[in-house]
Amino acid sequence: MNIQKDNTKPLNWRNKLHQIIFEADTKAGKRFDVLLFWAIALSVLAVMIESVKPIHEKYEFYFIVIEWTFTILFTIEFILRLISVKKPWKYVFSFYGLVDILSILPAYLGLWLVNGSSLRIIRILRLLRIFRVLKLMGFLKQATVINKALKASKQKILVFLFAITILTVLLGTVMYLIESEEAGFTSIPRSIYWAIVTLTTVGYGDIAPLTPLGQFVASIVMITGYAIIAVPTGIVSAEIAKTDEFPMQLNTLSCPSCSKEGHDDE
Amino acid sequence: MNIQKDNTKPLNWRNKLHQIIFEADTKAGKRFDVLLFWAIALSVLAVMIESVKPIHEKYEFYFIVIEWTFTILFTIEFILRLISVKKPWKYVFSFYGLVDILSILPAYLGLWLVNGSSLRIIRILRLLRIFRVLKLMGFLKQATVINKALKASKQKILVFLFAITILTVLLGTVMYLIESEEAGFTSIPRSIYWAIVTLTTVGYGDIAPLTPLGQFVASIVMITGYAIIAVPTGIVSAEIAKTDEFPMQLNTLSCPSCSKEGHDDE
Amino acid sequence: MNIQKDNTKPLNWRNKLHQIIFEADTKAGKRFDVLLFWAIALSVLAVMIESVKPIHEKYEFYFIVIEWTFTILFTIEFILRLISVKKPWKYVFSFYGLVDILSILPAYLGLWLVNGSSLRIIRILRLLRIFRVLKLMGFLKQATVINKALKASKQKILVFLFAITILTVLLGTVMYLIESEEAGFTSIPRSIYWAIVTLTTVGYGDIAPLTPLGQFVASIVMITGYAIIAVPTGIVSAEIAKTDEFPMQLNTLSCPSCSKEGHDDE
Amino acid sequence: MNIQKDNTKPLNWRNKLHQIIFEADTKAGKRFDVLLFWAIALSVLAVMIESVKPIHEKYEFYFIVIEWTFTILFTIEFILRLISVKKPWKYVFSFYGLVDILSILPAYLGLWLVNGSSLRIIRILRLLRIFRVLKLMGFLKQATVINKALKASKQKILVFLFAITILTVLLGTVMYLIESEEAGFTSIPRSIYWAIVTLTTVGYGDIAPLTPLGQFVASIVMITGYAIIAVPTGIVSAEIAKTDEFPMQLNTLSCPSCSKEGHDDE
Repeated sequence: MNIQKDNTKPLNWRNKLHQIIFEADTKAGKRFDVLLFWAIALSVLAVMIESVKPIHEKYEFYFIVIEWTFTILFTIEFILRLISVKKPWKYVFSFYGLVDILSILPAYLGLWLVNGSSLRIIRILRLLRIFRVLKLMGFLKQATVINKALKASKQKILVFLFAITILTVLLGTVMYLIESEEAGFTSIPRSIYWAIVTLTTVGYGDIAPLTPLGQFVASIVMITGYAIIAVPTGIVSAEIAKTDEFPMQLNTLSCPSCSKEGHDDE
Repeated sequence: MNIQKDNTKPLNWRNKLHQIIFEADTKAGKRFDVLLFWAIALSVLAVMIESVKPIHEKYEFYFIVIEWTFTILFTIEFILRLISVKKPWKYVFSFYGLVDILSILPAYLGLWLVNGSSLRIIRILRLLRIFRVLKLMGFLKQATVINKALKASKQKILVFLFAITILTVLLGTVMYLIESEEAGFTSIPRSIYWAIVTLTTVGYGDIAPLTPLGQFVASIVMITGYAIIAVPTGIVSAEIAKTDEFPMQLNTLSCPSCSKEGHDDE
Repeated sequence: MNIQKDNTKPLNWRNKLHQIIFEADTKAGKRFDVLLFWAIALSVLAVMIESVKPIHEKYEFYFIVIEWTFTILFTIEFILRLISVKKPWKYVFSFYGLVDILSILPAYLGLWLVNGSSLRIIRILRLLRIFRVLKLMGFLKQATVINKALKASKQKILVFLFAITILTVLLGTVMYLIESEEAGFTSIPRSIYWAIVTLTTVGYGDIAPLTPLGQFVASIVMITGYAIIAVPTGIVSAEIAKTDEFPMQLNTLSCPSCSKEGHDDE
Repeated sequence: MNIQKDNTKPLNWRNKLHQIIFEADTKAGKRFDVLLFWAIALSVLAVMIESVKPIHEKYEFYFIVIEWTFTILFTIEFILRLISVKKPWKYVFSFYGLVDILSILPAYLGLWLVNGSSLRIIRILRLLRIFRVLKLMGFLKQATVINKALKASKQKILVFLFAITILTVLLGTVMYLIESEEAGFTSIPRSIYWAIVTLTTVGYGDIAPLTPLGQFVASIVMITGYAIIAVPTGIVSAEIAKTDEFPMQLNTLSCPSCSKEGHDDE
């Protein structure tokens, strides 16, 4: 507590900035979070709509303006974050630091590559900006809760995926033997793809058995597969039933019963 | 019991009407509910069948007769409801009041707009009558129970939808990069639509990956997605297991142990 | 016990027959059950294969022989059942009595209608013989258990189906308004069919939204629908978890801890 | 501990070999297991990729080299296994013994059949090598756990499959009567295939009802079917919830608290 006081008493501008950007329990901090949330959501929406060709061609200029507005905004945010933390390099190489860089770099690189470079690279760069959506994950408080649950059932899920892999390789090969190439079973990897599509009950229908024998085997795959695929549902149900309270909260929307980390004006 | 008696003794015609229309614990009230149920069901069925072109053209006259019969019936019902309640304006702007208006207005507006107006508007108006089906929701007693359950798990569902949104945006963008336009991945929003179709295991097959790399990524999406989508099933299972009795009842079919709401005068 | 003794002591041929045909705890009774099981399974298989045109045309004669063999066998079985029960008319109008008649009548009627009648009727009659498969239900001991479970959750399932009906009618109408006829949304009933196909995650793809707005609404349908459709899984899971032992047994395959009904030779 | 010492003291080369090949609790044993795992995985991958025609034609020579390398490796492994066990014939006719033979035989038979024999047989033989993937099952410690769970719920699953069979036969026949041949319902077996595809919510869309009546029946199939198909999920969920700890472990990755099986001599 003593250290805490010492830390908060002289509260210089750098600490204030840190409080606003990284924390959400002050008024300014909450306002910043809400603004950031909408800035990310709108910029991702812009990239999404930009990919629709007719719209892109018609409003190309506006998209450039929007993109640069957001790029400059996120650049300022990134610089402010670097200033306010004590160890800037640690933040740069953290998950959210890398996402920040990935969000602003493409625009600057696009400027530099604008003439003479491959169009393919520019297209990929432009789309990398959509990874800004990952910054929204920061708004999910229970990222840690999900991480815990995932680590607890990691072993089970690995075993399940391992068994599914063996099963689909076998089923795919059997169907590759039975079915003709006209039905779409042109190679074992493709047949395995069919087996996964069928086992997960997605059932696109792009590859479907045509011969009676193939349809018979497919029927067995579906029925037995349905029972097998029930396993993850069972695991998740049991896991949720265990963690009775299931404390899932959105950071900016709910007041987390005030377990403050700042304790400003005593 | 004493209050009950006092309540029913001076019972004027308006109170009687209220009892018949809004309550279901008297004989007349039950009979009215059953009649209303079938009137709504039949009128909705009529609108549905009317939308089938060959039938509509052949029996156009009968559909007009049926429609006006039901419109007049529901108009009378609406007027009776307005008379029997103490605060008619409050009812008008309540959910069921608005549904009532939405159910009868289109027919009258259609009369007024019959010549000179856009056909599109008339078509939409005609279909608005199908919202009468919402009046059937009143027959589900546990509307309140469902509301409670929804409010209890609102937080969880919001977080789940938020996570799904981030996931599908990322997966859609990745598939937009990998797959060609011939496969149907013409823009990011369309690729996100594909990701949702695949994650929910609906799998229309209108958009399906064609390249081996795309099919590999799609396979991972299906398997991991299946585990993720198991979450709502788990939440609902746990929720139902909790509320052991699960008191779901149809209003007109079961006698709800008589917890009267009348008690107006006095 | 006394009545039981009186009943079984003088055991005449009719009682013996009843024991063999209707019960499964004597050697002869079990043997009869196994024979009947295979006779039904094979006759159903014959009808199934007969419906494949190339096979039917090639082996028409053999199918006629097989059909008449089974018809005569089942006729004998039916007559023996009528003789062995005390109230033959009651058996005739019971569920299994009607299935018995449905199983043998088509062959005789086909004989009578063979010339001059509609081919359509004969085709339907021939296929009615497949309802013999319902006789196999008698081999499921827990028919009563399932009946109990169904009666217990009847209310819940009715409410669920009612809610699904309202939801699909609304969703179908909204999609009928949004989507063009080229996508397959030609009438409201057809759009409701699409809504059911999508909500249950079957997803044939014969009808699929083409416009961006339609695909957006469809995405919402899929995600929210998936959560709603989790309800039956939740109900069944909770129901199974309750009935811990879950006493499911195949009649002819397992010895049911000998709660005899016959008590033959003392 | 004393027995352990006695066990390891006279340890001749055959016992050492047995420890390395069949057990995983010594350093050498673990290293052998990891090597075997990757050898199997890579050889299966090679067979899979080989089935893709363009790749096969381009790199035919390399695939022959790879195949023979793995065949010789697995032949040596098989011979070592035969030497190290006391009853070689018992191992040969065990499950993993047969899988071993199935894994190496095709290459040698292919050599012998290379000229003059049917291409079809050679193709099938080549693909049999993919059954090596079954050897990976040995790495799943809880094969015994899964076996126990399967044996415990065997009765339930049999009854469920039996009921599904009766249901799909009936539904298939009804749809065969209702729907035209253009929709794909050309025979009863094909209609049953459709019923299974629909009940399991796979929904390829290769066969889909076209008439309104057919779509109405299909809708009922989907909704009621969804509730029925929830049963396996319920069974598995209840089963997993029972076995609380759920002790699933990968053999080579986790140390299984050392319950040795060696103890041969003495």
